[in-house]
Amino acid sequence: MPSIATGRHFLQIPGPTNCPLPVLEAIARPTIDHRGPEFKRLAGTVLEGIRPIFGTCEPVIIFPASGTGAWEAALVNTLSPGDHVLMFETGWFASLWRKLAERLGLKAEILPGDWRGGVDAAAIEARLRADRGHAIKAVCVVHNETSTGVASDIPALRKAIDAAGHPALMMVDTISSLASIEYDHDGWGVDVTVAGSQKGLMLPPGLSFNAVSPKARAASVTARLPRAFWDWEDMIAANASNVFPYTPATNMLQGLKVAIELLQAEGMDNVFARHERAARATRAAVAHWGFETQCADPARHSASLTAVRLPEGHSADALRETILERANMSLGNGLGPLADRVFRIGHLGDFSDASVTGTIAGVELGLKQAGIPHRGGGVEAALGILAGNA
Amino acid sequence: MPSIATGRHFLQIPGPTNCPLPVLEAIARPTIDHRGPEFKRLAGTVLEGIRPIFGTCEPVIIFPASGTGAWEAALVNTLSPGDHVLMFETGWFASLWRKLAERLGLKAEILPGDWRGGVDAAAIEARLRADRGHAIKAVCVVHNETSTGVASDIPALRKAIDAAGHPALMMVDTISSLASIEYDHDGWGVDVTVAGSQKGLMLPPGLSFNAVSPKARAASVTARLPRAFWDWEDMIAANASNVFPYTPATNMLQGLKVAIELLQAEGMDNVFARHERAARATRAAVAHWGFETQCADPARHSASLTAVRLPEGHSADALRETILERANMSLGNGLGPLADRVFRIGHLGDFSDASVTGTIAGVELGLKQAGIPHRGGGVEAALGILAGNA
Amino acid sequence: MPSIATGRHFLQIPGPTNCPLPVLEAIARPTIDHRGPEFKRLAGTVLEGIRPIFGTCEPVIIFPASGTGAWEAALVNTLSPGDHVLMFETGWFASLWRKLAERLGLKAEILPGDWRGGVDAAAIEARLRADRGHAIKAVCVVHNETSTGVASDIPALRKAIDAAGHPALMMVDTISSLASIEYDHDGWGVDVTVAGSQKGLMLPPGLSFNAVSPKARAASVTARLPRAFWDWEDMIAANASNVFPYTPATNMLQGLKVAIELLQAEGMDNVFARHERAARATRAAVAHWGFETQCADPARHSASLTAVRLPEGHSADALRETILERANMSLGNGLGPLADRVFRIGHLGDFSDASVTGTIAGVELGLKQAGIPHRGGGVEAALGILAGNA
Amino acid sequence: MPSIATGRHFLQIPGPTNCPLPVLEAIARPTIDHRGPEFKRLAGTVLEGIRPIFGTCEPVIIFPASGTGAWEAALVNTLSPGDHVLMFETGWFASLWRKLAERLGLKAEILPGDWRGGVDAAAIEARLRADRGHAIKAVCVVHNETSTGVASDIPALRKAIDAAGHPALMMVDTISSLASIEYDHDGWGVDVTVAGSQKGLMLPPGLSFNAVSPKARAASVTARLPRAFWDWEDMIAANASNVFPYTPATNMLQGLKVAIELLQAEGMDNVFARHERAARATRAAVAHWGFETQCADPARHSASLTAVRLPEGHSADALRETILERANMSLGNGLGPLADRVFRIGHLGDFSDASVTGTIAGVELGLKQAGIPHRGGGVEAALGILAGNA
Repeated sequence: MPSIATGRHFLQIPGPTNCPLPVLEAIARPTIDHRGPEFKRLAGTVLEGIRPIFGTCEPVIIFPASGTGAWEAALVNTLSPGDHVLMFETGWFASLWRKLAERLGLKAEILPGDWRGGVDAAAIEARLRADRGHAIKAVCVVHNETSTGVASDIPALRKAIDAAGHPALMMVDTISSLASIEYDHDGWGVDVTVAGSQKGLMLPPGLSFNAVSPKARAASVTARLPRAFWDWEDMIAANASNVFPYTPATNMLQGLKVAIELLQAEGMDNVFARHERAARATRAAVAHWGFETQCADPARHSASLTAVRLPEGHSADALRETILERANMSLGNGLGPLADRVFRIGHLGDFSDASVTGTIAGVELGLKQAGIPHRGGGVEAALGILAGNA
Repeated sequence: MPSIATGRHFLQIPGPTNCPLPVLEAIARPTIDHRGPEFKRLAGTVLEGIRPIFGTCEPVIIFPASGTGAWEAALVNTLSPGDHVLMFETGWFASLWRKLAERLGLKAEILPGDWRGGVDAAAIEARLRADRGHAIKAVCVVHNETSTGVASDIPALRKAIDAAGHPALMMVDTISSLASIEYDHDGWGVDVTVAGSQKGLMLPPGLSFNAVSPKARAASVTARLPRAFWDWEDMIAANASNVFPYTPATNMLQGLKVAIELLQAEGMDNVFARHERAARATRAAVAHWGFETQCADPARHSASLTAVRLPEGHSADALRETILERANMSLGNGLGPLADRVFRIGHLGDFSDASVTGTIAGVELGLKQAGIPHRGGGVEAALGILAGNA
Repeated sequence: MPSIATGRHFLQIPGPTNCPLPVLEAIARPTIDHRGPEFKRLAGTVLEGIRPIFGTCEPVIIFPASGTGAWEAALVNTLSPGDHVLMFETGWFASLWRKLAERLGLKAEILPGDWRGGVDAAAIEARLRADRGHAIKAVCVVHNETSTGVASDIPALRKAIDAAGHPALMMVDTISSLASIEYDHDGWGVDVTVAGSQKGLMLPPGLSFNAVSPKARAASVTARLPRAFWDWEDMIAANASNVFPYTPATNMLQGLKVAIELLQAEGMDNVFARHERAARATRAAVAHWGFETQCADPARHSASLTAVRLPEGHSADALRETILERANMSLGNGLGPLADRVFRIGHLGDFSDASVTGTIAGVELGLKQAGIPHRGGGVEAALGILAGNA
Repeated sequence: MPSIATGRHFLQIPGPTNCPLPVLEAIARPTIDHRGPEFKRLAGTVLEGIRPIFGTCEPVIIFPASGTGAWEAALVNTLSPGDHVLMFETGWFASLWRKLAERLGLKAEILPGDWRGGVDAAAIEARLRADRGHAIKAVCVVHNETSTGVASDIPALRKAIDAAGHPALMMVDTISSLASIEYDHDGWGVDVTVAGSQKGLMLPPGLSFNAVSPKARAASVTARLPRAFWDWEDMIAANASNVFPYTPATNMLQGLKVAIELLQAEGMDNVFARHERAARATRAAVAHWGFETQCADPARHSASLTAVRLPEGHSADALRETILERANMSLGNGLGPLADRVFRIGHLGDFSDASVTGTIAGVELGLKQAGIPHRGGGVEAALGILAGNA
């Protein structure tokens, strides 16, 4: 076999995603003066253009930092030392967010989940009803759990909180769902939406976002967790003049402008439909092969990634290695307790039907190579879905 | 459906091919002084490095012009007005080369072929034997006929010419075979090899090549077709000092350097094996679908492209259009008498197993969309080939 | 001193020129199917957009070849073996064009010049008047002689030919003037204009052009020099459907589209004025240093380059080498009899006042380093011109 | 005047700086799997290669965040709420760092400065001697004050702290000095060095750094300021396996690798010498024009930028605007009390003698345009310096 990789790499991890070449092109343009007129035009365009992607008319804060920072920002801007937050254990990333909250000095309670379904809104509601003193200041959930391929029902969560009559802020991580799965910050009554650049926005990692409701901004007035780099109000004040309070990630913003234009050109509804079709095609192949998805709730399958459970006795990591070598294709690994049991197929960001089928074919090739028992013809099954959707 | 193309375009015409990003990167570097020291280093490297790719220790001329120019150069450097050349009608490109020869004032005789097989060496031999007066000055053939997907046996042609005891020059067009299918200019006794940048060399169109034997150079001394831009000896003289007699295509040479490095890193044998596997996988899919290849001789299938015959009553061009829209994938059209009857799948240049299967899946998706009767499961058949070859 | 070059290279040879980054970006985009719909849109745009840059409503032929090819194309499309052409020895490039004509089998007569002035229209007129039998089929001149920095008066040449009542075609090489110095193919009654991509058009080398008058096209009907690659009528016929008769230099056309847009955005009058200012500033520096320009006719200074004569006893090549090492800047060398006596400063293509003054400062720095006697303050003199022109 | 900018933009603000094209090229390469083998090789290379640039054998933390974040990280990893830090008011950025410290809940004391000189080591020493109870936990200074163009003497500060026998950590901001002005984290006994990607490292903004001494790491064990995103120990632990605890800025790291290679190729001593020559040349021009630098201490001029005081009654911002329009060149503005009084010329990162003189010429052109009285010939004065240094 060739010792070097040929062809385009298929980056099919569930993010970072394949960046469109025009986005990379824009990022590679010379850095400009972040206080000059050209930058101000750029900043104005992206600050305005990013809002509808979150479904908000309120400010969206853009941090020159990767996604984990936006988790931190959501908490430090709204909470005070020792505050109680309620989370739901959808999987690895929900668990990580909880750990982060604890390190920031918060009391983070996480309702247990089996990593195969979405947020249990009823459990949240029950817990909130029990919180008569309103000690809980925020409910923080992951919209699309990247470790399991489960997308939770955020409007149901809103209803649950409202039904409990509880004033907690609602914070939602959309890192692997934004610009891939329908989302409506304002319409769904979210207080803080957390996002990153490297998934549906089709950029490299390096930018992260907080969309913030008026209620969240009000909370920030009294929130006492220390903050400087992450402070919203400095950002919002500076952004009013299309500048930033400190050096922004200029070149990433150049790329963001192009990414927004691409999303606008395709239309968000088409973007969502494209992801949904790819997910259905991928699941058809997985089912055909005879494997289970990690998501056990048919109503909550993620449109942006599929986590696949391998039969007992087979190593998902060995399979991924084979596929990397043979098909020049990266897949996501299993995280935490799912390590080596699960592999994850990303179908988000910039892709076509040919990329989706190429991906599925690459996986099937790997299954054959690795000698993992499966029913051949997964690509055929996927093609059936893709073709049927004309 | 989305109105804009998403994902990477699959450029699966049989050339120009998908350029590796490092090649495009190099082409996009600033133009340098074509008389300065940096350029001389560059020129020295590519003039040296290109030779083994042709299998020659003799000079390779690099023209700042696309492939058709190298056809012209081969003829005007070696022949005189009214000279007789013998060709073989492997398909569209052999026919075009003949027309070009006629326009340059040569007498071009083409032995008829059915566009489904390679050069008939026996027929050439018979014709040469009949040419007792050695009026025929050159035998010109296409190694890999891009219109039909047939690769001819060049060593057999050499033997035929030798067996006939005929002194004609042997000229070979390798435009769609160089750096994809084994080739040995010196070892096979070729006098002039014609090539272009935009196929196996993985560059955009814009460079073309003549590899020239001592016998061909000797012929150029007395050849009287007028020439200036295409003149070999000016080139060879200037190249000795790593410059060019007139402005070269600097940025393309920057790209060529990288392309050569990539081929060297993979190893030419691995390059050829990769193309051969892709071709076998593609043919397995075609056979599974129930279609014929245009190449009717099992021994002469091209490793770099496959021309597929659609059943009567179905439009190959309509299919290609569907695939372009649905899968963001370009395929080659049928040329001349094959128009709309045949479509051509390129599997040459820079690709991986995932690109090959993605391509086949894209075609199968198109067949389904277009309602062309076929047996499903072509990708599966291709995977069998790819996996079996571990 | 650092052993590696830092900062952006100043490519101040009189072409190839510094390409704008958006042009390089476009060239580096993936190659597209040269028979597909996207390509046709591209071709249509550039074939249309290039015309006003030549000042013509007639077709402009775009060859996938560097500039020398367009010289050849101009001749082989319009002339027959042994035809007589009249040229004027403005310098190195006029002389090269004559040699090329001779190699193509033409009788090329060149009126002698001293390489310090432009085309002598009166001498041409006298020669044409003497040609009672109209043996002379074409008058071929270089608009802007790149070896000397002299721009000839083309309307005066037109008048001279008309005054002589002579039917010869008028052919003009604008390789280093197009899109830098005012030019009007139709208005000035030019029959064939020859140009390349790598100067005022701000592209790398690799494309060349013929703008052709109806009279030139009529001549091509009977012209008997053999031609195929260079044939105009094949091009014009194919271009009518926005395709090319053979593989075009796709990626260069992608760049050309952007270059045309940049020129349109600036406006051709502004482009010409920018070059004129740069030339005046450069000459002010040269005069201040105490040097002569190679152009001895104040009315005919080129706006796109300045050839500078060094005092006796000083090596222009050594100076250029010093400047390359010290200032990371390339300058043009003296050609033919001017070798080592003259160096040439390019001020054409994509530049700003800062590039112009940076260039002049680089030269002055080199003069100091090399110990060549000169009056300091050349940059100051140049700034006076640039500032006075607000 | 043309309404569009032509030529390369001269980004002569004191950072972000002009990125070398190979760095931008690397950033524009496709994003790779941040958990795959290719990424691990990349991470290993940059984590190792960055250390000598700081002059350290200890870990250097790389944050996917812009420079301000590294200020915050330095403090939150080492200090506890209410801790006392001592700073010195060298200018705007020292003042900003103090504000940031206060917002994080620290007691930040800043010794007053006049913004025209460096850190007063004697004053620091006196203050530390007075701090008998060692309430002061850290001394935080800016090595190269970007608002004034003053570089402080860090070894002198080390001596002062040692002379006082004080255990405070020494933290140094090298944002506009790293890889431009000599620096030796280990040799100078610095505990935390703060840096960013967008200055001497020649990258766009988006990465920032903490180099950390064993003493600083020891402090982090007991430091109680909350931290998660900025936590050093998570980073150091993950970096041991060449991964990161959360998604890194992959593409920026691709660029960093190239930037490090460029610095290694030039050699750090050559890099420093190049900056020093540029600074002396720039100051020679400023002096010749008849202006003062903001730095009033001849021993402490910055090698990476020069802040220039305009005569009373002239607007520095209007001058910068003129220069931007006329010369396509950005200069830095005056900050805080220096607004509109001072402009700043960056000479750091990737530049050559031609860029330096082009910059100075651009400023002089602007002075002429704006009608600000000055003695002409500043470029000449600069050339004297540059040439004298052969």
